[in-house]
Amino acid sequence: MNKKIFDYLRKDIKNIGNYEIVGAEGLAKLDAMENPYEFLANISFEKFSDKNLVSLNRYPDSYCNNTKDIIKKSLNLNCNIDLAFGNGSDELIQMICLAFLKEGNKVLAPEPSFSMYERITKIVGLEFISVPLAKDFNLNIEDIKKVIKRSDPAIVFLAYPNNPTGNVWDEESVIEIIKSSNSLVVIDEAYFPFSKKTLVNLIDEYENIIILRTFSKIGLAGIRFGYAIGNEELISIINKMRLPFNINSMSQNVINVVLKNLEKFNFRVEEIIQARKELFSKMLSIKGIETYESYANFILFRILDKDAGEVFNSLCELGVLVKDVSGEPGLKNCLRVTVGNESENSIFLSSLESILLR
Amino acid sequence: MNKKIFDYLRKDIKNIGNYEIVGAEGLAKLDAMENPYEFLANISFEKFSDKNLVSLNRYPDSYCNNTKDIIKKSLNLNCNIDLAFGNGSDELIQMICLAFLKEGNKVLAPEPSFSMYERITKIVGLEFISVPLAKDFNLNIEDIKKVIKRSDPAIVFLAYPNNPTGNVWDEESVIEIIKSSNSLVVIDEAYFPFSKKTLVNLIDEYENIIILRTFSKIGLAGIRFGYAIGNEELISIINKMRLPFNINSMSQNVINVVLKNLEKFNFRVEEIIQARKELFSKMLSIKGIETYESYANFILFRILDKDAGEVFNSLCELGVLVKDVSGEPGLKNCLRVTVGNESENSIFLSSLESILLR
Repeated sequence: MNKKIFDYLRKDIKNIGNYEIVGAEGLAKLDAMENPYEFLANISFEKFSDKNLVSLNRYPDSYCNNTKDIIKKSLNLNCNIDLAFGNGSDELIQMICLAFLKEGNKVLAPEPSFSMYERITKIVGLEFISVPLAKDFNLNIEDIKKVIKRSDPAIVFLAYPNNPTGNVWDEESVIEIIKSSNSLVVIDEAYFPFSKKTLVNLIDEYENIIILRTFSKIGLAGIRFGYAIGNEELISIINKMRLPFNINSMSQNVINVVLKNLEKFNFRVEEIIQARKELFSKMLSIKGIETYESYANFILFRILDKDAGEVFNSLCELGVLVKDVSGEPGLKNCLRVTVGNESENSIFLSSLESILLR
Repeated sequence: MNKKIFDYLRKDIKNIGNYEIVGAEGLAKLDAMENPYEFLANISFEKFSDKNLVSLNRYPDSYCNNTKDIIKKSLNLNCNIDLAFGNGSDELIQMICLAFLKEGNKVLAPEPSFSMYERITKIVGLEFISVPLAKDFNLNIEDIKKVIKRSDPAIVFLAYPNNPTGNVWDEESVIEIIKSSNSLVVIDEAYFPFSKKTLVNLIDEYENIIILRTFSKIGLAGIRFGYAIGNEELISIINKMRLPFNINSMSQNVINVVLKNLEKFNFRVEEIIQARKELFSKMLSIKGIETYESYANFILFRILDKDAGEVFNSLCELGVLVKDVSGEPGLKNCLRVTVGNESENSIFLSSLESILLR
């Protein structure tokens, strides 16, 4: 390539790696917190009924107004609370970072946490700082307050429950962080359907918070649809950063249909919560691992007497793909398994047991 | 809102306005270069045939590999040429700008041109500079070369054909710009289906160009699907800036179906080209306007003896929504009409004539 172009590219381009995607063909795919139950969308260009037809020749509704109305009603939000929409939470995280794109601004998150906070912060050109979690994966609240005081971050990201640890922070700690921050705190409730714990009511009390939600974990990862909840002023700023027609018409339409048939999706969510409990209790009885309680649709566990990377590879060989998170700070020798369907969970358990007995 | 947050927001936040969207209810919508022919997608959660089923519970293919294979074959590209995908060209423009996010970097485009070049440049935090077009809307090639020499832009955007003027630059001028630029030149071929003119072959010759294409103008604006064509090295850099699962599974699937049935879409494109010729010839005979030849699916025209804003409003009152571009530099008293279907074009013509005769 033209050597000269490199002089114009950002200097940190080489520090930004490709996002790693592991091939899953033929494997029980338990790496990505997907819902194991297929929701099959049939997309046809033929008009065979009056329902759910979308005019694809027109640009989509910029503000997703139909979807917004349904969600606002379902959340029973005050009238001064608004929503912004993104292609998954990822795009919302990007818009939020862009709104604070100013020399010297920093973005803070506990570590380990959702990897996209750091990746998107860097792509947008802000500085990322992190505070290690305590050994039990709880917030080191005094450390965080110290770093907030010292580094004065423009944005704090808190995943609630946290990924990949699966635990939920206690509400008082989150409130302490909200109070000690001079700027924005983003509470990412991607796993809310499985935790049933939300801090959405704090929006009425504190003006500096945004809540993120997504449809990805309840079975619609392929749709890419997330939303931010916040006061009108914050949401209007996020919308300024948004590409005007970011959410395509089909995704809007599918989400509207989903919202009218939420019981079908909730039924699967309850199945997964039940399966998580069973998987957790069975994992507790497996020798050679330490298993951590989870409020999400995945379980983190630590390999005690073997190498996690080797166990990961052996699981792949036996047809099970989990996520190797052992390289992340504080997660030495840890793996993360997504709760799958009955047969996937059972293959995972028997494979893991046989590997650990070797 | 928390007054303190404003101290952390970027300083230019107040200079970035909301993207204006004009309500079109009940009007012949000739403002947005949409295809007038409805392609109705039926989206259902029921499995009624084997065709076109998408598993929505899984994350989409990050690299749109199926779509990529089909497009690469259809374009007959050399093997060292790659594609990157975005939610419309908008997202690709954003990724390209992010890749060059470095203090002092500038983005250049002729003016008037596609408004998103300037908007996205500013959202990403780069400096936008423009060079006025000549009175006949051709490139002021000497001026552009001077500005390139003086301001040394990291990116030059050239819409080919240009929007909102509708003309196509001559190839030698574009090559002169490519040669005089030290960095990247992006050639945006959004209206290629209507112009049939492409510079895609220049990619083999010059290493510093990227071509943008979109499915929006052939009848799929609701899908939000655009792609960038460039050498592997450039495309890999753009992909680093891309959110890993940016294109949802349904859009990928629909585009795959479209690519296998392109003749249906091309048939409508030919109809629109024919309609543009007829509309242009009829507009030429209307007194009180100057009409500019177009290679796209819209026509720019200047109101000679009345106020364009008033003509715009009168057209709305008669049920026709066009685009008022009279505020853009070099487009004093100009309006832009999208080529619609027969009845829309006819309502537009008769309304315009009656307004001009008042």
